Amino acid sequence: MPRKLTDKGQATRTRILEHAAELIYTKGVHATNNEQLRRAAGVSGSQLNHYFPTKESLVLAVIAWQADRVLAFHRSERFASFNDLDAFREWADFYVGYERAYQEGCSLGSLASEIIKTDLDVHDELASAFDQWRDIFRDGLQHMQQLGRISTDADPAQLANLLLSAFQGGSLLAQVARDITPLKDALQAAIDYVQTFVRSPEIDVLQVR
Amino acid sequence: MPRKLTDKGQATRTRILEHAAELIYTKGVHATNNEQLRRAAGVSGSQLNHYFPTKESLVLAVIAWQADRVLAFHRSERFASFNDLDAFREWADFYVGYERAYQEGCSLGSLASEIIKTDLDVHDELASAFDQWRDIFRDGLQHMQQLGRISTDADPAQLANLLLSAFQGGSLLAQVARDITPLKDALQAAIDYVQTFVRSPEIDVLQVR
Repeated sequence: MPRKLTDKGQATRTRILEHAAELIYTKGVHATNNEQLRRAAGVSGSQLNHYFPTKESLVLAVIAWQADRVLAFHRSERFASFNDLDAFREWADFYVGYERAYQEGCSLGSLASEIIKTDLDVHDELASAFDQWRDIFRDGLQHMQQLGRISTDADPAQLANLLLSAFQGGSLLAQVARDITPLKDALQAAIDYVQTFVRSPEIDVLQVR
Repeated sequence: MPRKLTDKGQATRTRILEHAAELIYTKGVHATNNEQLRRAAGVSGSQLNHYFPTKESLVLAVIAWQADRVLAFHRSERFASFNDLDAFREWADFYVGYERAYQEGCSLGSLASEIIKTDLDVHDELASAFDQWRDIFRDGLQHMQQLGRISTDADPAQLANLLLSAFQGGSLLAQVARDITPLKDALQAAIDYVQTFVRSPEIDVLQVR
Protein backbone atom coordinates (compact mmCIF):
# COMPACT_ATOMS: atom_id res chain seq x y z
CA MET A 1 0.00 0.00 0.00
CA PRO A 2 2.00 2.97 -1.24
CA ARG A 3 -0.41 5.62 0.04
CA LYS A 4 -2.01 6.28 3.35
CA LEU A 5 -5.70 5.54 2.92
CA THR A 6 -8.60 7.03 4.85
CA ASP A 7 -10.70 4.60 6.87
CA LYS A 8 -13.31 4.69 4.17
CA GLY A 9 -10.68 4.15 1.49
CA GLN A 10 -9.26 1.27 3.45
CA ALA A 11 -12.70 -0.30 3.77
CA THR A 12 -13.32 -0.01 0.04
CA ARG A 13 -9.95 -1.49 -0.77
CA THR A 14 -10.61 -4.39 1.61
CA ARG A 15 -14.03 -5.01 0.10
CA ILE A 16 -12.55 -5.18 -3.40
CA LEU A 17 -9.83 -7.48 -2.16
CA GLU A 18 -12.25 -9.88 -0.45
CA HIS A 19 -14.29 -10.22 -3.61
CA ALA A 20 -11.22 -10.54 -5.81
CA ALA A 21 -9.84 -13.29 -3.57
CA GLU A 22 -13.16 -15.15 -3.69
CA LEU A 23 -13.58 -14.81 -7.46
CA ILE A 24 -10.00 -15.90 -8.10
CA TYR A 25 -10.32 -18.84 -5.71
CA THR A 26 -13.51 -20.02 -7.41
CA LYS A 27 -12.96 -19.22 -11.07
CA GLY A 28 -9.20 -18.89 -11.35
CA VAL A 29 -7.11 -15.80 -11.95
CA HIS A 30 -7.42 -15.84 -15.75
CA ALA A 31 -11.21 -16.04 -15.78
CA THR A 32 -11.61 -13.20 -13.28
CA ASN A 33 -12.08 -9.88 -14.99
CA ASN A 34 -12.70 -6.29 -13.93
CA GLU A 35 -16.36 -6.37 -14.88
CA GLN A 36 -17.13 -9.31 -12.56
CA LEU A 37 -15.08 -7.79 -9.79
CA ARG A 38 -16.78 -4.39 -10.07
CA ARG A 39 -20.19 -6.03 -9.86
CA ALA A 40 -19.30 -8.34 -7.00
CA ALA A 41 -17.68 -5.61 -4.91
CA GLY A 42 -20.17 -2.91 -5.96
CA VAL A 43 -17.53 -0.41 -7.04
CA SER A 44 -17.03 1.69 -10.13
CA GLY A 45 -14.32 1.15 -12.69
CA SER A 46 -12.54 4.27 -11.53
CA GLN A 47 -12.61 3.10 -7.93
CA LEU A 48 -11.20 -0.27 -8.90
CA ASN A 49 -8.54 1.43 -10.97
CA HIS A 50 -7.71 3.76 -8.10
CA TYR A 51 -6.90 0.97 -5.68
CA PHE A 52 -5.58 -1.60 -8.15
CA PRO A 53 -4.32 0.08 -11.31
CA THR A 54 -3.08 -3.17 -12.86
CA LYS A 55 -3.97 -6.86 -12.71
CA GLU A 56 -0.51 -7.46 -11.26
CA SER A 57 -1.19 -5.10 -8.36
CA LEU A 58 -4.49 -6.88 -7.71
CA VAL A 59 -2.95 -10.36 -7.87
CA LEU A 60 -0.12 -9.28 -5.57
CA ALA A 61 -2.64 -7.98 -3.05
CA VAL A 62 -4.67 -11.20 -3.28
CA ILE A 63 -1.54 -13.28 -2.69
CA ALA A 64 -0.75 -11.19 0.40
CA TRP A 65 -4.37 -11.51 1.53
CA GLN A 66 -4.52 -15.28 1.12
CA ALA A 67 -1.06 -15.70 2.66
CA ASP A 68 -2.11 -13.66 5.71
CA ARG A 69 -5.19 -15.80 6.17
CA VAL A 70 -3.41 -19.11 5.74
CA LEU A 71 -0.56 -18.12 8.06
CA ALA A 72 -2.91 -16.68 10.69
CA PHE A 73 -4.98 -19.88 10.58
CA HIS A 74 -1.90 -22.04 11.08
CA ARG A 75 -0.67 -19.77 13.88
CA SER A 76 -4.02 -19.83 15.67
CA GLU A 77 -4.31 -21.31 19.17
CA ARG A 78 -6.18 -24.22 17.67
CA PHE A 79 -2.91 -25.77 16.53
CA ALA A 80 -0.78 -24.82 19.55
CA SER A 81 2.25 -24.06 17.37
CA PHE A 82 2.15 -27.65 16.11
CA ASN A 83 4.10 -28.90 19.06
CA ASP A 84 2.50 -32.32 19.21
CA LEU A 85 1.07 -34.95 16.88
CA ASP A 86 -2.51 -34.13 17.83
CA ALA A 87 -2.13 -30.67 16.34
CA PHE A 88 -1.09 -32.17 13.01
CA ARG A 89 -4.03 -34.61 13.13
CA GLU A 90 -6.38 -31.75 13.91
CA TRP A 91 -4.96 -29.78 11.01
CA ALA A 92 -5.41 -32.67 8.57
CA ASP A 93 -8.94 -33.30 9.84
CA PHE A 94 -9.83 -29.69 9.22
CA TYR A 95 -8.84 -29.76 5.57
CA VAL A 96 -10.25 -33.23 4.95
CA GLY A 97 -13.56 -31.96 6.29
CA TYR A 98 -13.42 -28.69 4.35
CA GLU A 99 -15.31 -29.34 1.15
CA ARG A 100 -13.70 -26.52 -0.79
CA ALA A 101 -10.39 -28.36 -0.43
CA TYR A 102 -11.42 -30.74 -3.17
CA GLN A 103 -13.57 -28.30 -5.07
CA GLU A 104 -11.12 -25.43 -5.34
CA GLY A 105 -7.89 -26.69 -3.79
CA CYS A 106 -5.61 -24.67 -1.54
CA SER A 107 -6.43 -20.96 -1.60
CA LEU A 108 -2.75 -20.06 -1.94
CA GLY A 109 -1.37 -23.09 -3.75
CA SER A 110 -3.99 -23.11 -6.49
CA LEU A 111 -3.32 -19.43 -7.16
CA ALA A 112 0.43 -20.01 -7.17
CA SER A 113 0.09 -22.87 -9.66
CA GLU A 114 -2.01 -20.77 -11.98
CA ILE A 115 0.44 -17.88 -12.20
CA ILE A 116 3.89 -19.34 -11.54
CA LYS A 117 4.62 -19.55 -15.28
CA THR A 118 3.21 -16.15 -16.20
CA ASP A 119 5.10 -12.87 -16.48
CA LEU A 120 3.42 -11.47 -13.38
CA ASP A 121 6.14 -10.27 -11.01
CA VAL A 122 4.79 -12.11 -7.97
CA HIS A 123 7.50 -14.66 -7.41
CA ASP A 124 9.09 -13.22 -4.27
CA GLU A 125 5.73 -12.82 -2.53
CA LEU A 126 4.80 -16.43 -3.24
CA ALA A 127 8.18 -17.75 -2.14
CA SER A 128 8.02 -15.77 1.09
CA ALA A 129 4.50 -16.99 1.89
CA PHE A 130 5.36 -20.66 1.37
CA ASP A 131 8.61 -20.28 3.33
CA GLN A 132 6.72 -18.90 6.30
CA TRP A 133 4.11 -21.64 6.05
CA ARG A 134 6.72 -24.40 5.99
CA ASP A 135 8.58 -22.75 8.86
CA ILE A 136 5.49 -23.03 11.06
CA PHE A 137 5.62 -26.81 10.65
CA ARG A 138 9.40 -26.97 10.95
CA ASP A 139 9.45 -24.87 14.12
CA GLY A 140 6.74 -27.03 15.66
CA LEU A 141 8.67 -30.19 14.85
CA GLN A 142 11.90 -28.69 16.18
CA HIS A 143 10.11 -27.79 19.38
CA MET A 144 8.76 -31.35 19.64
CA GLN A 145 12.31 -32.54 19.24
CA GLN A 146 13.60 -30.20 21.95
CA LEU A 147 10.87 -31.46 24.25
CA GLY A 148 11.95 -35.02 23.56
CA ARG A 149 8.62 -35.85 21.94
CA ILE A 150 10.19 -36.96 18.69
CA SER A 151 13.54 -38.57 18.07
CA THR A 152 16.65 -36.56 17.25
CA ASP A 153 16.78 -38.71 14.10
CA ALA A 154 13.90 -36.73 12.66
CA ASP A 155 14.76 -33.93 10.22
CA PRO A 156 12.21 -31.18 10.97
CA ALA A 157 12.90 -29.23 7.76
CA GLN A 158 12.51 -32.35 5.64
CA LEU A 159 9.32 -33.40 7.41
CA ALA A 160 7.93 -29.88 7.03
CA ASN A 161 8.54 -30.07 3.30
CA LEU A 162 6.81 -33.44 3.19
CA LEU A 163 3.77 -32.14 5.08
CA LEU A 164 3.37 -29.04 2.94
CA SER A 165 4.01 -30.97 -0.28
CA ALA A 166 1.51 -33.66 0.70
CA PHE A 167 -1.03 -30.92 1.34
CA GLN A 168 -0.39 -29.08 -1.92
CA GLY A 169 -0.17 -32.19 -4.07
CA GLY A 170 -3.07 -33.87 -2.31
CA SER A 171 -5.20 -30.78 -2.87
CA LEU A 172 -4.46 -30.81 -6.58
CA LEU A 173 -5.21 -34.52 -6.90
CA ALA A 174 -8.42 -34.13 -4.89
CA GLN A 175 -9.53 -31.32 -7.21
CA VAL A 176 -8.78 -33.42 -10.26
CA ALA A 177 -10.50 -36.51 -8.82
CA ARG A 178 -13.38 -34.46 -7.35
CA ASP A 179 -12.86 -36.64 -4.32
CA ILE A 180 -11.11 -35.89 -1.03
CA THR A 181 -9.37 -39.30 -0.83
CA PRO A 182 -6.00 -38.32 -2.34
CA LEU A 183 -5.63 -35.44 0.12
CA LYS A 184 -6.86 -37.51 3.04
CA ASP A 185 -4.46 -40.34 2.23
CA ALA A 186 -1.48 -38.05 1.68
CA LEU A 187 -1.98 -36.14 4.92
CA GLN A 188 -2.62 -39.22 6.98
CA ALA A 189 0.43 -41.02 5.61
CA ALA A 190 2.66 -37.96 6.05
CA ILE A 191 1.56 -37.56 9.67
CA ASP A 192 1.87 -41.32 10.27
CA TYR A 193 5.45 -40.97 9.11
CA VAL A 194 6.06 -38.18 11.63
CA GLN A 195 4.52 -40.52 14.19
CA THR A 196 7.23 -43.11 13.55
CA PHE A 197 9.64 -40.64 15.19
CA VAL A 198 7.58 -40.25 18.33
CA ARG A 199 9.52 -41.33 21.37
CA SER A 200 7.91 -43.18 24.20
CA PRO A 201 9.50 -45.41 26.85
CA GLU A 202 7.81 -48.45 25.34
CA ILE A 203 9.00 -47.75 21.83
CA ASP A 204 12.51 -46.84 22.97
CA VAL A 205 13.05 -50.39 24.11
CA LEU A 206 12.16 -51.75 20.72
CA GLN A 207 13.56 -48.88 18.68
CA VAL A 208 14.68 -50.27 15.35
CA ARG A 209 15.75 -47.09 13.63
CA MET B 1 -8.59 -38.12 -33.35
CA PRO B 2 -11.97 -38.22 -35.03
CA ARG B 3 -10.62 -38.65 -38.57
CA LYS B 4 -8.21 -41.08 -40.11
CA LEU B 5 -5.11 -39.10 -41.03
CA THR B 6 -2.59 -39.81 -43.76
CA ASP B 7 1.00 -40.47 -42.64
CA LYS B 8 1.91 -36.95 -43.62
CA GLY B 9 -1.11 -35.57 -41.81
CA GLN B 10 -0.23 -37.59 -38.75
CA ALA B 11 3.33 -36.26 -38.85
CA THR B 12 2.12 -32.67 -39.08
CA ARG B 13 -0.31 -33.18 -36.24
CA THR B 14 2.45 -34.71 -34.10
CA ARG B 15 4.80 -31.83 -34.86
CA ILE B 16 2.18 -29.28 -33.82
CA LEU B 17 1.49 -31.26 -30.69
CA GLU B 18 5.16 -31.51 -29.70
CA HIS B 19 5.60 -27.78 -30.01
CA ALA B 20 2.33 -27.04 -28.24
CA ALA B 21 3.34 -29.30 -25.35
CA GLU B 22 6.72 -27.60 -25.09
CA LEU B 23 5.31 -24.07 -25.27
CA ILE B 24 2.62 -24.85 -22.70
CA TYR B 25 5.13 -26.51 -20.39
CA THR B 26 7.46 -23.52 -20.56
CA LYS B 27 5.11 -20.54 -20.75
CA GLY B 28 1.85 -21.90 -19.43
CA VAL B 29 -1.38 -22.59 -21.26
CA HIS B 30 -2.74 -19.04 -21.06
CA ALA B 31 0.37 -17.40 -22.49
CA THR B 32 0.58 -19.83 -25.40
CA ASN B 33 -1.16 -18.49 -28.49
CA ASN B 34 -1.71 -19.61 -32.06
CA GLU B 35 0.86 -17.21 -33.47
CA GLN B 36 3.69 -18.64 -31.33
CA LEU B 37 2.60 -22.16 -32.06
CA ARG B 38 2.41 -21.61 -35.81
CA ARG B 39 5.94 -20.18 -35.81
CA ALA B 40 7.40 -22.87 -33.56
CA ALA B 41 5.84 -25.73 -35.51
CA GLY B 42 6.28 -24.08 -38.91
CA VAL B 43 2.65 -24.49 -39.95
CA SER B 44 0.05 -22.16 -41.39
CA GLY B 45 -2.98 -20.91 -39.53
CA SER B 46 -5.24 -23.07 -41.66
CA GLN B 47 -3.14 -26.16 -40.95
CA LEU B 48 -3.29 -25.45 -37.24
CA ASN B 49 -7.02 -24.91 -37.46
CA HIS B 50 -7.43 -28.11 -39.44
CA TYR B 51 -5.89 -30.31 -36.76
CA PHE B 52 -6.93 -28.33 -33.70
CA PRO B 53 -9.99 -26.21 -34.41
CA THR B 54 -10.28 -24.94 -30.82
CA LYS B 55 -7.96 -24.28 -27.90
CA GLU B 56 -9.85 -26.96 -26.01
CA SER B 57 -9.07 -29.56 -28.66
CA LEU B 58 -5.40 -28.57 -28.50
CA VAL B 59 -5.26 -28.66 -24.71
CA LEU B 60 -6.99 -32.04 -24.65
CA ALA B 61 -4.45 -33.40 -27.10
CA VAL B 62 -1.56 -31.97 -25.04
CA ILE B 63 -2.95 -33.57 -21.88
CA ALA B 64 -3.14 -36.92 -23.68
CA TRP B 65 0.38 -36.39 -25.03
CA GLN B 66 1.91 -35.52 -21.66
CA ALA B 67 -0.04 -38.30 -19.95
CA ASP B 68 1.24 -40.85 -22.47
CA ARG B 69 4.81 -39.71 -21.89
CA VAL B 70 4.58 -39.69 -18.11
CA LEU B 71 2.87 -43.08 -17.99
CA ALA B 72 5.28 -44.64 -20.48
CA PHE B 73 8.22 -43.31 -18.48
CA HIS B 74 6.87 -44.80 -15.26
CA ARG B 75 6.13 -48.09 -17.01
CA SER B 76 9.60 -48.30 -18.54
CA GLU B 77 11.95 -51.15 -17.60
CA ARG B 78 14.03 -48.69 -15.66
CA PHE B 79 11.56 -48.84 -12.78
CA ALA B 80 10.75 -52.57 -12.97
CA SER B 81 7.06 -51.95 -12.19
CA PHE B 82 8.10 -50.35 -8.90
CA ASN B 83 8.35 -53.69 -7.19
CA ASP B 84 11.13 -52.74 -4.79
CA LEU B 85 12.36 -49.74 -2.85
CA ASP B 86 15.29 -49.20 -5.19
CA ALA B 87 12.90 -48.42 -8.02
CA PHE B 88 11.28 -45.67 -5.95
CA ARG B 89 14.71 -44.28 -5.02
CA GLU B 90 15.74 -44.34 -8.67
CA TRP B 91 12.53 -42.54 -9.60
CA ALA B 92 13.08 -39.82 -6.99
CA ASP B 93 16.70 -39.41 -8.03
CA PHE B 94 15.64 -38.91 -11.62
CA TYR B 95 13.32 -36.01 -10.83
CA VAL B 96 15.64 -34.46 -8.25
CA GLY B 97 18.33 -34.43 -10.92
CA TYR B 98 16.03 -33.13 -13.65
CA GLU B 99 16.45 -29.38 -13.62
CA ARG B 100 13.15 -28.64 -15.32
CA ALA B 101 11.41 -30.13 -12.27
CA TYR B 102 12.07 -26.95 -10.34
CA GLN B 103 11.97 -24.64 -13.31
CA GLU B 104 8.69 -25.75 -14.83
CA GLY B 105 7.28 -28.34 -12.44
CA CYS B 106 5.57 -31.55 -13.45
CA SER B 107 4.65 -31.60 -17.16
CA LEU B 108 1.18 -32.94 -16.37
CA GLY B 109 0.55 -31.52 -12.89
CA SER B 110 1.50 -27.96 -13.77
CA LEU B 111 -0.86 -28.06 -16.76
CA ALA B 112 -3.63 -29.56 -14.63
CA SER B 113 -3.23 -26.82 -11.99
CA GLU B 114 -3.41 -24.13 -14.60
CA ILE B 115 -6.67 -25.28 -16.15
CA ILE B 116 -8.56 -27.14 -13.42
CA LYS B 117 -10.64 -24.05 -12.62
CA THR B 118 -11.31 -23.03 -16.21
CA ASP B 119 -14.33 -23.94 -18.33
CA LEU B 120 -12.25 -26.21 -20.55
CA ASP B 121 -13.90 -29.61 -20.67
CA VAL B 122 -10.78 -31.58 -19.84
CA HIS B 123 -11.65 -32.92 -16.42
CA ASP B 124 -12.17 -36.58 -17.29
CA GLU B 125 -8.91 -36.79 -19.22
CA LEU B 126 -6.96 -35.34 -16.31
CA ALA B 127 -8.65 -37.59 -13.77
CA SER B 128 -7.97 -40.67 -15.88
CA ALA B 129 -4.30 -39.77 -16.33
CA PHE B 130 -3.66 -39.23 -12.63
CA ASP B 131 -5.60 -42.39 -11.73
CA GLN B 132 -3.39 -44.44 -14.02
CA TRP B 133 -0.26 -42.79 -12.65
CA ARG B 134 -1.24 -43.51 -9.06
CA ASP B 135 -2.18 -47.07 -9.97
CA ILE B 136 1.35 -47.73 -11.22
CA PHE B 137 2.66 -46.98 -7.72
CA ARG B 138 -0.19 -48.81 -6.01
CA ASP B 139 0.25 -51.92 -8.13
CA GLY B 140 3.99 -51.93 -7.45
CA LEU B 141 3.42 -51.64 -3.72
CA GLN B 142 0.76 -54.37 -3.81
CA HIS B 143 3.18 -56.59 -5.64
CA MET B 144 5.87 -55.86 -3.04
CA GLN B 145 3.35 -56.85 -0.42
CA GLN B 146 2.48 -60.10 -2.20
CA LEU B 147 6.18 -60.89 -2.42
CA GLY B 148 6.51 -60.29 1.32
CA ARG B 149 8.84 -57.36 0.77
CA ILE B 150 6.66 -54.95 2.71
CA SER B 151 4.38 -55.61 5.62
CA THR B 152 0.70 -56.40 5.21
CA ASP B 153 0.13 -53.37 7.47
CA ALA B 154 1.02 -51.07 4.57
CA ASP B 155 -1.88 -49.57 2.62
CA PRO B 156 -0.67 -49.51 -1.02
CA ALA B 157 -3.41 -47.13 -2.20
CA GLN B 158 -2.68 -44.69 0.59
CA LEU B 159 1.07 -44.83 0.05
CA ALA B 160 0.55 -44.34 -3.69
CA ASN B 161 -1.46 -41.19 -2.96
CA LEU B 162 1.30 -39.98 -0.65
CA LEU B 163 3.99 -40.57 -3.27
CA LEU B 164 2.11 -38.83 -6.07
CA SER B 165 1.02 -35.98 -3.79
CA ALA B 166 4.57 -35.49 -2.52
CA PHE B 167 5.74 -35.33 -6.12
CA GLN B 168 3.06 -32.87 -7.24
CA GLY B 169 3.27 -30.66 -4.17
CA GLY B 170 7.05 -30.84 -4.02
CA SER B 171 7.23 -29.81 -7.69
CA LEU B 172 5.05 -26.77 -7.04
CA LEU B 173 7.08 -25.73 -3.98
CA ALA B 174 10.34 -26.25 -5.88
CA GLN B 175 9.08 -24.03 -8.69
CA VAL B 176 8.05 -21.34 -6.23
CA ALA B 177 11.33 -21.55 -4.30
CA ARG B 178 13.41 -21.92 -7.49
CA ASP B 179 15.20 -24.62 -5.53
CA ILE B 180 14.89 -28.39 -5.74
CA THR B 181 14.99 -28.90 -1.95
CA PRO B 182 11.24 -29.07 -1.27
CA LEU B 183 10.79 -31.78 -3.91
CA LYS B 184 13.90 -33.65 -2.80
CA ASP B 185 12.79 -33.59 0.84
CA ALA B 186 9.23 -34.60 0.08
CA LEU B 187 10.20 -37.55 -2.11
CA GLN B 188 12.89 -38.78 0.23
CA ALA B 189 10.61 -38.60 3.26
CA ALA B 190 7.73 -40.30 1.42
CA ILE B 191 9.98 -43.14 0.31
CA ASP B 192 11.57 -43.37 3.76
CA TYR B 193 8.06 -43.87 5.07
CA VAL B 194 7.47 -46.73 2.62
CA GLN B 195 10.79 -48.11 3.86
CA THR B 196 9.40 -48.36 7.40
CA PHE B 197 7.14 -51.13 6.07
CA VAL B 198 9.99 -53.17 4.60
CA ARG B 199 10.13 -56.58 6.17
CA SER B 200 13.37 -58.26 7.03
CA PRO B 201 14.03 -61.09 9.49
CA GLU B 202 15.89 -58.69 11.76
CA ILE B 203 13.07 -56.15 11.84
CA ASP B 204 10.39 -58.79 12.27
CA VAL B 205 11.84 -59.67 15.64
CA LEU B 206 11.57 -56.11 16.84
CA GLN B 207 8.40 -55.23 14.92
CA VAL B 208 6.62 -52.50 16.87
CA ARG B 209 3.85 -51.70 14.42
